[in-house]
Amino acid sequence: MTLTASADRRAARRARRAQSPFAQIPFGRIQNHFAPFEVITPEQVEQLHEASMHILENIGIVFMDAEALSLWEQAGAQVDHASQNVRFDRGLILDLVAKAPAQFTWRARNPAREMTVGGDFLMFAPNGGVIFAQDLEGGRRPGTLEDYYNFLRLAQLCPVLHTTGDQLVVPHDVPVSFRHLHRSFGAWTLCDKVAMEAPHGRIIPADAIEMANIVFGADVATFDEPVLGGIINSSSPLRYDDRMLGGMITYGRAGQVLIITPFVLAGAMSPITIASAVAQQNAEALAGIAFVQLLRPGAPVIYGGFTSNIDMKSGAPAFGTPEGAWAMAIGAQLARRYNLPYRGSGSLNTSKAPDAQAAYETMWTTWPAVLAHTNFVMHAVGWLDGGLTVSYEKIIIDMENLAMFQTFLGGLAINEETLALDMIAAVPPGGHHFGTPHTQARYATEFHPTFLADRQNFELWQENGSLDTAQRANRIWKQLLEEYEAPPIDPAVEQALREFVERRERELAGVELYT
Amino acid sequence: MTLTASADRRAARRARRAQSPFAQIPFGRIQNHFAPFEVITPEQVEQLHEASMHILENIGIVFMDAEALSLWEQAGAQVDHASQNVRFDRGLILDLVAKAPAQFTWRARNPAREMTVGGDFLMFAPNGGVIFAQDLEGGRRPGTLEDYYNFLRLAQLCPVLHTTGDQLVVPHDVPVSFRHLHRSFGAWTLCDKVAMEAPHGRIIPADAIEMANIVFGADVATFDEPVLGGIINSSSPLRYDDRMLGGMITYGRAGQVLIITPFVLAGAMSPITIASAVAQQNAEALAGIAFVQLLRPGAPVIYGGFTSNIDMKSGAPAFGTPEGAWAMAIGAQLARRYNLPYRGSGSLNTSKAPDAQAAYETMWTTWPAVLAHTNFVMHAVGWLDGGLTVSYEKIIIDMENLAMFQTFLGGLAINEETLALDMIAAVPPGGHHFGTPHTQARYATEFHPTFLADRQNFELWQENGSLDTAQRANRIWKQLLEEYEAPPIDPAVEQALREFVERRERELAGVELYT
Repeated sequence: MTLTASADRRAARRARRAQSPFAQIPFGRIQNHFAPFEVITPEQVEQLHEASMHILENIGIVFMDAEALSLWEQAGAQVDHASQNVRFDRGLILDLVAKAPAQFTWRARNPAREMTVGGDFLMFAPNGGVIFAQDLEGGRRPGTLEDYYNFLRLAQLCPVLHTTGDQLVVPHDVPVSFRHLHRSFGAWTLCDKVAMEAPHGRIIPADAIEMANIVFGADVATFDEPVLGGIINSSSPLRYDDRMLGGMITYGRAGQVLIITPFVLAGAMSPITIASAVAQQNAEALAGIAFVQLLRPGAPVIYGGFTSNIDMKSGAPAFGTPEGAWAMAIGAQLARRYNLPYRGSGSLNTSKAPDAQAAYETMWTTWPAVLAHTNFVMHAVGWLDGGLTVSYEKIIIDMENLAMFQTFLGGLAINEETLALDMIAAVPPGGHHFGTPHTQARYATEFHPTFLADRQNFELWQENGSLDTAQRANRIWKQLLEEYEAPPIDPAVEQALREFVERRERELAGVELYT
Repeated sequence: MTLTASADRRAARRARRAQSPFAQIPFGRIQNHFAPFEVITPEQVEQLHEASMHILENIGIVFMDAEALSLWEQAGAQVDHASQNVRFDRGLILDLVAKAPAQFTWRARNPAREMTVGGDFLMFAPNGGVIFAQDLEGGRRPGTLEDYYNFLRLAQLCPVLHTTGDQLVVPHDVPVSFRHLHRSFGAWTLCDKVAMEAPHGRIIPADAIEMANIVFGADVATFDEPVLGGIINSSSPLRYDDRMLGGMITYGRAGQVLIITPFVLAGAMSPITIASAVAQQNAEALAGIAFVQLLRPGAPVIYGGFTSNIDMKSGAPAFGTPEGAWAMAIGAQLARRYNLPYRGSGSLNTSKAPDAQAAYETMWTTWPAVLAHTNFVMHAVGWLDGGLTVSYEKIIIDMENLAMFQTFLGGLAINEETLALDMIAAVPPGGHHFGTPHTQARYATEFHPTFLADRQNFELWQENGSLDTAQRANRIWKQLLEEYEAPPIDPAVEQALREFVERRERELAGVELYT
């Protein structure tokens, strides 16, 4: 390649970037300075706390892992080995929970992308735990590695997604034993944001840590700050299974982020009343968080809430409901009660198409999540159909809304310049402000730069093909994938990651791994 | 008709009602006990207040009506007759504003439908000020009286709409001079909720009061409580036109509700910065409210905010924006500053179809409106295309969300029964709660009864025709119009209303009225 050709390519890239839907949307650490939205009173928070303490002291939580049981026994909990049930004094639990940091830094391979978790900070994570991929042309089909990598590319491009996520979709074309290797390889090479990999069992997270060691050129377990994280779900009611406990033990000892999230559908995995569901969620979350602190005091954890309700007509999970919104906000109140960062969710909905229901149920999840001061919003983009499916178009619809939240939370300045009383005096009653110097100086930058909403008049919209939101989103994700360029990475690191994947593929061939 | 036939019809009606989408949704006065969501600090509220006082004292507001100018002159304001500009001491304005009630009762012809306005109370009003009607089959076309009456029927049926609204759509098939008569006739006969009619000029509101007198069998101006209300828009910047002032004078003297709402698009009718736009909004609103108190001290008014921004790419109004959400919440803070009820908006959006954008922009308006403690949410259903169009399907989509807000604001009980610790103890770890007596006793009533969201699994949804939200909403509005029955009215009252309309049609034939 000649120097000129290279310069041409750089110029073309710059031009492409200037036209990107995201061109005017900054990447940054989002802070929420509004007072947290709260659904219950401090007294009610204490009622829930007391109920959770009752559950932990008198009913207990099952830990389906011999090492976990032995650790609890050494710590002084009452362990019943036959049932694997563990009961705890509240003092034991609360002392351990108090060791977890209220706020921590989560390092990324690109230092400019590192995140602060906790306090007033907010980060958005992409879709997770999904089976099917869907787009307008291809319809719904089992996800592939290509889909997985496309979602990583979109996450990298989008300035208001702050992590690679993990389990973006199941890559069905990769053998189960190798999937984590290819997920992580993509996360480290296609993205430079805060990285995630599923802490399932002991092998997957150990491999993920090895790969992080390669990227950071050091044993990341010796760092003060985590470089990797993942979601833990309790198997509600009242149970952590060996898959999750292996992950907790492996990441926990290495000081990597564990997002401890009971998955409670009221009426199925808990009593039907939301009060009971969140009391149970709280007991499960605290038991998990305390367990991580047993492994490594001060290890970074996030208190997770994922409580919604069952649709009692169909028995199917319901998302984006008033009850789910209560649970979301109450979870944040409980996390604050224990000085812990909080994980909620974003794009939850049960629609099968990227339509009005998908959008409004998503807003019924994201609004309460954001206003309640959620620190880590999981599934912030892409979900359809209760999380069975990720839609390319829905990803774009949700990205538009995340960008709007970033602007919204930025708030507005009130000062002499923004009050512009001289301009109000200068324009006569009934006149207009289009042409004033105050407007002209700001018209390109003052308002949030939407990239999906259509504000043409009806006639123009019709002339341009009467495209609905999903159809416009379809064009945008294709445009984004075209403009995508992988972030720079040391070729030696990339090569080492590749060799690690190849070696582990040989070693793990035929080994049954947790998905 | 035989008695048996009549009994059969009643039974059929009951059966139909039991299957109504709204069957499980109660009608009631909604209260919001959550702390108001606030965007700015109390100090910033004072900054805006000071800026508004500066505008009122030094720049002034134009009142384009001789009677209004003379009233202001008598009150001690500085009136410039040539320019029709009025400047006010802040003491004059604030003393007048202080006379307005913080809370009042708005009577309906059915006493069970009366509303409390102000405080923690919340009422939802339908679409207003709309030109076109739209549905999936018919597409967009100029509204007709049949559309108007259909929207009244839907408003009457929907338990979470609390007023008839007015100007639901322009009835293009009725001569301009008669439109208000047929709007009001429909509002009083097809609905029994709190009634509205546009206070435009002096003739329309006088006729509306006459019709209210017929309905209530008395001079409603002598009542302590209003029975009628309507929206006033300032012609921003800094101007009330004669159309609006005639309405203010006519309703104000009769003690009927005036919802004083500056319509400010930042960058067009005000400086581009939202701080300036809301300072101007506040000055205009206070001047209007003070004027009403000049006419009849203690007359019920609502402080209205309708501030959004211009899309600076197209010059078109933008709705459902982060900036509009700021303005919505700040308006509520300002209204509280003056102890006034607050009017915000609901379904604002710029989409041309009842799709994802329509839904998410609507949520970007309704969420901040509700959480900011808006008392009167105008346009709570139906808008598309910046309010040029009302969509039958969008009405249903929005009604679903209003019902969700009603449930959400109801909050949840936390007590021994709802905590159900005995049930948590009774179900083994990993078991399920479907069959417990606690669940069984509540499964039909515990969760919000959604009527539009589809929670079937993908395969069933596909088998059933892959209907998207708008297609399902299309079925629902048709079902609702079929089940509609007019609320009972004294036949003599209905006859008197009809005769009034006929008489006024003769008298107004050819008279040019404000629309």
